[in-house]
Amino acid sequence: MARQIVIIGASASGIEAAAATRKKDRTAEITLITQEKTAGYSRCGLPFVIGGHIANFKDLVVYPQAFFKMLKLNLRTETKATTIDTKNKTISIQTKEGSCETLSYDALVIATGADAFMPPIKGREKRGILSLRTMEDGEKIDTAIKAGAKSAVIMGAGLIGLELGAGLMERGLKVTVIEMLPQILPQFLDADMAKLVQQHLEEKGMNIILNKVIEEFLGEDKVIAVKAGGEISRADLFISAFGVRASTQLAIDAGIPIGETHAIKTNARMETGVKDVYAIGDCAEAPNIITHRPTCAQLGTIAVREGKVAGVNIGGEYSLFSGVLASAVTRLFDIEAGNTGLTETAAQRNRIEVITGTVNSKTKADYFPGAKFIKIKLVIEKESQHIIGAQVVGGEEVTQRINCLSFAIQQGMTVRELAKADTAYAPPLCETWEPMVLAAEIAMMKLR
Amino acid sequence: MARQIVIIGASASGIEAAAATRKKDRTAEITLITQEKTAGYSRCGLPFVIGGHIANFKDLVVYPQAFFKMLKLNLRTETKATTIDTKNKTISIQTKEGSCETLSYDALVIATGADAFMPPIKGREKRGILSLRTMEDGEKIDTAIKAGAKSAVIMGAGLIGLELGAGLMERGLKVTVIEMLPQILPQFLDADMAKLVQQHLEEKGMNIILNKVIEEFLGEDKVIAVKAGGEISRADLFISAFGVRASTQLAIDAGIPIGETHAIKTNARMETGVKDVYAIGDCAEAPNIITHRPTCAQLGTIAVREGKVAGVNIGGEYSLFSGVLASAVTRLFDIEAGNTGLTETAAQRNRIEVITGTVNSKTKADYFPGAKFIKIKLVIEKESQHIIGAQVVGGEEVTQRINCLSFAIQQGMTVRELAKADTAYAPPLCETWEPMVLAAEIAMMKLR
Repeated sequence: MARQIVIIGASASGIEAAAATRKKDRTAEITLITQEKTAGYSRCGLPFVIGGHIANFKDLVVYPQAFFKMLKLNLRTETKATTIDTKNKTISIQTKEGSCETLSYDALVIATGADAFMPPIKGREKRGILSLRTMEDGEKIDTAIKAGAKSAVIMGAGLIGLELGAGLMERGLKVTVIEMLPQILPQFLDADMAKLVQQHLEEKGMNIILNKVIEEFLGEDKVIAVKAGGEISRADLFISAFGVRASTQLAIDAGIPIGETHAIKTNARMETGVKDVYAIGDCAEAPNIITHRPTCAQLGTIAVREGKVAGVNIGGEYSLFSGVLASAVTRLFDIEAGNTGLTETAAQRNRIEVITGTVNSKTKADYFPGAKFIKIKLVIEKESQHIIGAQVVGGEEVTQRINCLSFAIQQGMTVRELAKADTAYAPPLCETWEPMVLAAEIAMMKLR
Repeated sequence: MARQIVIIGASASGIEAAAATRKKDRTAEITLITQEKTAGYSRCGLPFVIGGHIANFKDLVVYPQAFFKMLKLNLRTETKATTIDTKNKTISIQTKEGSCETLSYDALVIATGADAFMPPIKGREKRGILSLRTMEDGEKIDTAIKAGAKSAVIMGAGLIGLELGAGLMERGLKVTVIEMLPQILPQFLDADMAKLVQQHLEEKGMNIILNKVIEEFLGEDKVIAVKAGGEISRADLFISAFGVRASTQLAIDAGIPIGETHAIKTNARMETGVKDVYAIGDCAEAPNIITHRPTCAQLGTIAVREGKVAGVNIGGEYSLFSGVLASAVTRLFDIEAGNTGLTETAAQRNRIEVITGTVNSKTKADYFPGAKFIKIKLVIEKESQHIIGAQVVGGEEVTQRINCLSFAIQQGMTVRELAKADTAYAPPLCETWEPMVLAAEIAMMKLR
């Protein structure tokens, strides 16, 4: 009899798990369940549809119906998993119309993702607070813009908040971003690097308010302003970008162990603490490569890598997830910013003694017209001299430098090795002395 | 008494050696000698001045007079080193005006570079055969274009030949490139990757003739056509881009040992076989990181790295050159191409058993407008599964991928590790599954 594989979630990690399972097991019955109307679209693309770079939300669908058909995957949209019974190996589901059903599984994958988080702020029950997690969320924001919204307050200066803020400005809105912490992108960049991004956003006209906690949503039943640090900001749109939290209620109710990050505990095969139950993507924990501590990075690249590992294991082969560096990158107007490994702040939080090396350089030979600025910061573990983190902010060519430094970290490259690395050069494409190499040299001066 | 440091050559490697020496030794008398009128300019930029990207040849000067003054370097232009006496530790020099002088040295650096090579072709003594090695060479070509040249034949489809060919086309010339071998860029790319570049150049209108040896230069005392494979190509300009050869005559005459690549033999401190004599840059050998065999890659990045190592050692500290991967990159019209480590062909020549993995992908998320193509080829040593080479051709974001794979090779990354690597992603900047990772996965299928 064909094995029953049930996957709760039909976004990046869930679909990757389904595809990897199918590759190894041609006969398994694979069912994907999602509460959303549309499956297999890119969440990371949402801010860019709002910004007008991509014509339609539907364009974000990277896995069309034909894909599910081709791989013989049963996709059940607008369906909610209500309970998991790990003893009898079943899950209960409920369709939009309310009809219930029980599915048996030989292997279950929890890929429930994460939900937008809203702190307990006074007035948060009022209408008109939007967020940007799903396609429907995106459509709501788009509808509001088309209905004439001219201004927005975004609460939270993380990646999603700022990408959305840039998108709204590209659509002509006046945007204010309010952040509780003293810097933008606090999870992503150190303050010195974040400052550069902030300056660029402010030059573009973004109003950024730091160090202010949102105290209250004002308005009758519909929000018309927020109060933060005693000051009132009015706007047509209010968007919650406080961050996301792993969707774990279903797992908790089923007695599946949760880890210290409040996401689902997993081992390197992406198995949870319960036999034949896997967890992947934004709802799952995985170890950080440097600290070896559990982390929940909630990035698309991590999600697909975890999904593939789970799928290979479910398909009967053996695969281990190699851990998280949380390499990530974003583009905001004309600037790109990326991070891999630990920031200086994160290293200090982990009580790792570090030195840093920071360099300002250009993206082409100095004499080549059109050269853009680039700033690179390396974080070096002092004792071993290993690179353990890197941040890059610049006008172009940032992403693959993050990948360079991610590879360097993963392979245990020392700052000394980086300072002597063999790199490529051509006047229209980079400098003779690669800025990453220069940053390593600057860091090394602090080792003497 | 101040030490006497003499450097023959005042281009990338020589100046880097001078600067590194000065950092360690504040009192040394450092003299740089060059036959050229202008020192410290970027040779690699010459094709881009001809192409009109850079306004003037003088813009290529990256080390102006003020730099030499600031570091207290004696720069002697239009001066030729005629002999080296390694026993008495002197060199003889001759100025343009013919006056001779003898300089003593405590340390001597040979940074004589390389010269354009001309095979023994019938009629090669005729006037009108240009090359592109120095600023004067570039000015001659520029003058010819301004005087009305409408067409050019370039002999040799290496990096310089093609960069110059593209530059001439950008200035409106009709360009024919004649190459003896069956592919363009034979030292740089495998045939499958070179084909992509060739197609692009042909689409732009370049006439590329492969598999044809230049047999004769035709014309009275001035060349008006070349005969290659029996066919005659007429043009207004004839440019020799057969490649360059290490300038070693001075070293040979002084009894300084030459290596198997016909460049000057060196050790890891960039010392030659004679005490207190160093050789760096295009005239010097250095070991390849993978094959451990001597190589003479003649790249600007290698030159500056070698120069720095020599300078640190001359300055009284200790530094080793970490070897050559020959990472290199070029831009030709709208395409970028790069290589690091060994091509498949070079691996076979070195009798290394390899597998390869090649992938075609895009430079942004599939749904993001403006995504360009990118093709990646990995060369994997079969036994160890280490990556030993990589080639990338694409519309953008090629250079730093070459650096990524260069780091991977230098750090002994296996194809399996690359297939599981943590990479960064954002829709406007790259795909969720990084093409380098996909190429690794494709290569791994051949390992089973």
